[in-house]
Amino acid sequence: MNYRMIAQYVNLVLKLMSAFMAAALAFALVQEESMAAMGFFATLVIAVVGFMLLEQLKYESKTMYIKDGFVAVAACWLTFAILGAVPYWVSGEIPFLVDALFESTSGISTTGASILTDIEALSDSMLAWRSFTHWIGGLGVLVFLMAMVPAISGGERSVSVMRAEMPGPAPGKLVPKLRQSSRILCYIYLTLTLAQVLLLMIGGMSFFDSLLTSFSVAGTGGFHIKNLSMAAYDSAYLQTVTACFMVLFGVNFNVLFFLFIRDFVHIRRNEELRIYLGIIAAATCLIAWNIYGAFYDSITEALQNGFFQVASVITSTGFSTTDYNLWPTFSKSILFILMFIGASAGSTGGGIKVSRVVMLVREARRTLFRISHPRSVEVVKMDCKTVEKSVIHAVNAYLSTYFMVFFVSFLFISLDGFDFETTISAAAASINNTGPGFGMVGPMGSYSAFSPMSKIVLSLNMLIGRLEIYPMLLLISPRTWKKM
Amino acid sequence: MNYRMIAQYVNLVLKLMSAFMAAALAFALVQEESMAAMGFFATLVIAVVGFMLLEQLKYESKTMYIKDGFVAVAACWLTFAILGAVPYWVSGEIPFLVDALFESTSGISTTGASILTDIEALSDSMLAWRSFTHWIGGLGVLVFLMAMVPAISGGERSVSVMRAEMPGPAPGKLVPKLRQSSRILCYIYLTLTLAQVLLLMIGGMSFFDSLLTSFSVAGTGGFHIKNLSMAAYDSAYLQTVTACFMVLFGVNFNVLFFLFIRDFVHIRRNEELRIYLGIIAAATCLIAWNIYGAFYDSITEALQNGFFQVASVITSTGFSTTDYNLWPTFSKSILFILMFIGASAGSTGGGIKVSRVVMLVREARRTLFRISHPRSVEVVKMDCKTVEKSVIHAVNAYLSTYFMVFFVSFLFISLDGFDFETTISAAAASINNTGPGFGMVGPMGSYSAFSPMSKIVLSLNMLIGRLEIYPMLLLISPRTWKKM
Repeated sequence: MNYRMIAQYVNLVLKLMSAFMAAALAFALVQEESMAAMGFFATLVIAVVGFMLLEQLKYESKTMYIKDGFVAVAACWLTFAILGAVPYWVSGEIPFLVDALFESTSGISTTGASILTDIEALSDSMLAWRSFTHWIGGLGVLVFLMAMVPAISGGERSVSVMRAEMPGPAPGKLVPKLRQSSRILCYIYLTLTLAQVLLLMIGGMSFFDSLLTSFSVAGTGGFHIKNLSMAAYDSAYLQTVTACFMVLFGVNFNVLFFLFIRDFVHIRRNEELRIYLGIIAAATCLIAWNIYGAFYDSITEALQNGFFQVASVITSTGFSTTDYNLWPTFSKSILFILMFIGASAGSTGGGIKVSRVVMLVREARRTLFRISHPRSVEVVKMDCKTVEKSVIHAVNAYLSTYFMVFFVSFLFISLDGFDFETTISAAAASINNTGPGFGMVGPMGSYSAFSPMSKIVLSLNMLIGRLEIYPMLLLISPRTWKKM
Repeated sequence: MNYRMIAQYVNLVLKLMSAFMAAALAFALVQEESMAAMGFFATLVIAVVGFMLLEQLKYESKTMYIKDGFVAVAACWLTFAILGAVPYWVSGEIPFLVDALFESTSGISTTGASILTDIEALSDSMLAWRSFTHWIGGLGVLVFLMAMVPAISGGERSVSVMRAEMPGPAPGKLVPKLRQSSRILCYIYLTLTLAQVLLLMIGGMSFFDSLLTSFSVAGTGGFHIKNLSMAAYDSAYLQTVTACFMVLFGVNFNVLFFLFIRDFVHIRRNEELRIYLGIIAAATCLIAWNIYGAFYDSITEALQNGFFQVASVITSTGFSTTDYNLWPTFSKSILFILMFIGASAGSTGGGIKVSRVVMLVREARRTLFRISHPRSVEVVKMDCKTVEKSVIHAVNAYLSTYFMVFFVSFLFISLDGFDFETTISAAAASINNTGPGFGMVGPMGSYSAFSPMSKIVLSLNMLIGRLEIYPMLLLISPRTWKKM
C-alpha cells in the first residue's frame, strides 16, 4: 500500500477544506452568527494543523496501483465527511456527533438525507455550508471521473485514483488533454449552476435561496433550506425550472459537453440519453395517471408534480413539491424502482445508472435468445457499438455486490424495529444517494429517530453508493490492509 | 419449434392427470362429497378427451432443441395448473375462475400462497387434491431435473426438456443410467414422505392430516389443511418433526442419496449443505434472540418457533406456527432475505438457491480482490473445485433476470394500492415460491383481496420462479414464436 501517496490526496482535501472554512468563517462573521463562526473556525484549525503535519511527509513519486487509488478516494471522501461534520457539532446546531456525521456524509455524498426536523432553525451560514457540500461533492465526483479517464486508458500508473470515481461503466473521453477536459467540466458545471441561479431569481426567488437550491441540484443532492423543500415555493415556474435542471444534471457530462459545442450528431447517437429521457417521460405519465383525480384536479398539475418527483428521484436529488408518501402504492413503487435505476453514467446522479441497467436488460434478453438459438453470435450493443464481454461481466458482478450491500444494510437497520416500508426505503435511499424514502423517512420526515448504529450504517451506505461500491469496500476490507 | 414433441409432453401430463382424477373421483365418492366428485369428473373428461385428441398426432423423433425443451416444460406446468383448477371451480368450492387458477398454480408450483380465507370449509377430497398438487409438483421438479442431467451432458438432443428443470446451477450426476437415477430419486422422495407420515402419526396426528402435511412438506409447498397452519397442533414434537423434514427436503437430493447409501465422505465435502445448515442455524439464533422476551418467555420456545419459521421460509414451504407478521422488523427482514436465498440446488425448494448465492458472494469477493491484486489468478471455488467462468456468468445473468422479473411484478401488483409491505412481500413470496409474505398476505392472511390481474401476475411469478425463470420467459416471449 502506497501510504504516502494516499496521504498526499488526503492532504489536498485538507487544503481545500481550509479554504472553504476560511470563506465560511468570513460569511458567518458578516452574518454575525458567532456560534457558527466558532464551528467553522475550529474546523479551519483542525484542517490547517492536519495539512501542516501531512506536509512533513516526503512526496515520493512511487508507482501507485489501482488499489491505492481506490483507497485514496475513499479516504478523501471520509476525511471530507468527518471534517465537514465539525462545524455542525461545534456550533451546537447539531448537538449529537453521530447526527453531525450523518448530515455531513449525506452532504458530501450528495444524498440529501437529513436528521434535522427543523431545517429552518439553522443559521444562514450553516445552511450555506450544508448546501455547498452537495455542490463540491458533485463536482468532486465529476472531476475525479472525467479528468482521469484518459490517463487510465494510457496505463494503470499514478492517476488510477480516479478510476474509482467513474460514476458509470464507460464514460468515454472528452478531449485528449487531462487538464483541459477537467477545466471544461468545471466550466460546464459552473455555467449550469449559474444559469439555474439566474432563472430562479427571475422567478422571484431570493439570491441566497436560488444559490443554495442550485448547489443542491447541481450535485443532485437534495438538502433544501426550507422544511417543506420545494413545496415552500408555490410557483409552477420555480418548481419546473428546478425539475429541468435536475434532469440536466442527471445527464452524462460528455453529452452536455457536446451540447456546449453544438455537436448534435453525437447527442442524437447517445442511447443512454434517449433511454434516460424515455424512462422519465414514461414514469411521469404513469404517475400522473395514478395521482390524477384523487390528488390533483387538473391533469397539468398531476403531470407537473409527477414530473418533478420523477426527476428528483431518478437523478437521486430527493427534492419534493408534495408529500409523495401519501401517493398510491403504484406511484411509490415506480419511485422505488427509479431510485435503483438512477441517473446517467458520468453525471452527478446516483443509483445503478441507466447505462448499466440497459446493459443488464440487454444481456438478459441475449441470454434468453441464446437458449433458443444456441449457435447465434448475438452480442450486446450500446450506441451501435459492441459491448465487450468483460464489461458486461463487470456490470453483472457490480449488480450482485450492490444488492448484497443493500440487503446487509437493510438487515442492520431493521434492528431499530421501524416498519418495513421505512426500513427498506431507508436502505434504498441511502445506497442510491436519493435522500428521502417512504414512511418515517418520507419527504416530510427525517432520519432523526434512527439509532446511532443505524445512522452509521446508513452513512457508510451513502459513501459506498456514491463511490460506486468498490473503493469503500476496499477501505473497510481487512484483506486490503494485510501484508501479502 | 418442434410442436409435435411439445404436444407429446403435454399429452403425458394429460395422461397423468386422468389417473389422478380417477383416484380423486373414487376418493370423493367414498367420502360422499358429490360436488367435489363432479369437479374431478369434469376434469377427468377434459383430460381424457385432450389426450385422445393429442394421441392422433403422429410422433416423430425429430431433433429437439433446448428451446423446445424449455417451452415443453413450461407448457406442461401450465397445462397442469390450468387443468388442476377445474375441480376447484366446477365443484364450486372456489367459485371464481381466477381464484381457482391461482390456487392451482400455487399448488403445482409448490408455492403455497392461497386465496382461501377459510381452508377448513373445503371438502376432504378437495383438501387432499390441493395438498397432492404440492407433492406431485415437487416430484416433477426432481424427476425432470435429476433424471435428465446425464442425458444432457451427453448432448443437447431429445431430452433437453429437462435442463429447464434444474433447480440449481450444478446438480451433478447420481448414477450413469437415466432410468435408474430417476427411480432412486422417486424412492428417496417416497421414503422420506412415508417416514414423515409415520413420525407425525406417532405424535398423535391423524393419518389424513399426517399424509396431507407430508405432501406439502415434501414439495416444500405450504398449503395446509388447517386455517392456523401448523399452529393448529399445539405440540412441540409435531412442529419440530415438520421443521426437520422441511430442512431435509431443502437439501440437494444428491446429498440425500449419499445419505441413503451411507457415503458420508461425499456429504462432508458438500459445501452447499454446510452453508445451508449454517444459514439456518445463524438465522434461527438471531430470530430467537430478537423474539425472546417480547414474544416468548422461555428461550427454548423462542428457538423452537424461530427454527420452524426459518426452516419454513428458507425452504420456501411457508408453514407457520405463529403469526410471524407480528414479530419485530429485524426478524421479518431476516425472513425476507431468506425467501430470496432459498434452499439448496437439486431440492424441491425455491428461491435463488444457496449454491448460486455462494457463487455470487465469492465472485463479489474475487472482484474486490482483483482490484487490489490485478495480476492474481484467484478463482471461485465450490466443493474444492474451480467453478468455470461460464457458470459464474450464467449465475450472474440469472440473478439480474430474477430481480428484473421481481421488480416488474412488484410494479404490476402495486396497482392494487395495498400497502408497501404487502405488495413487495407478495412479489417476493410468489417468485421465490414461499407462499405467505407479510402484511395482508402474512401467515394468517390470504391473497383473496388482490385484483384478478394481480392474481394472474402472481401466478405467472410462481411458475417463473419454480421453473428457474427461463422456460416461462421463453414461453411468453414473442421472439420464441417468430419464424427465423
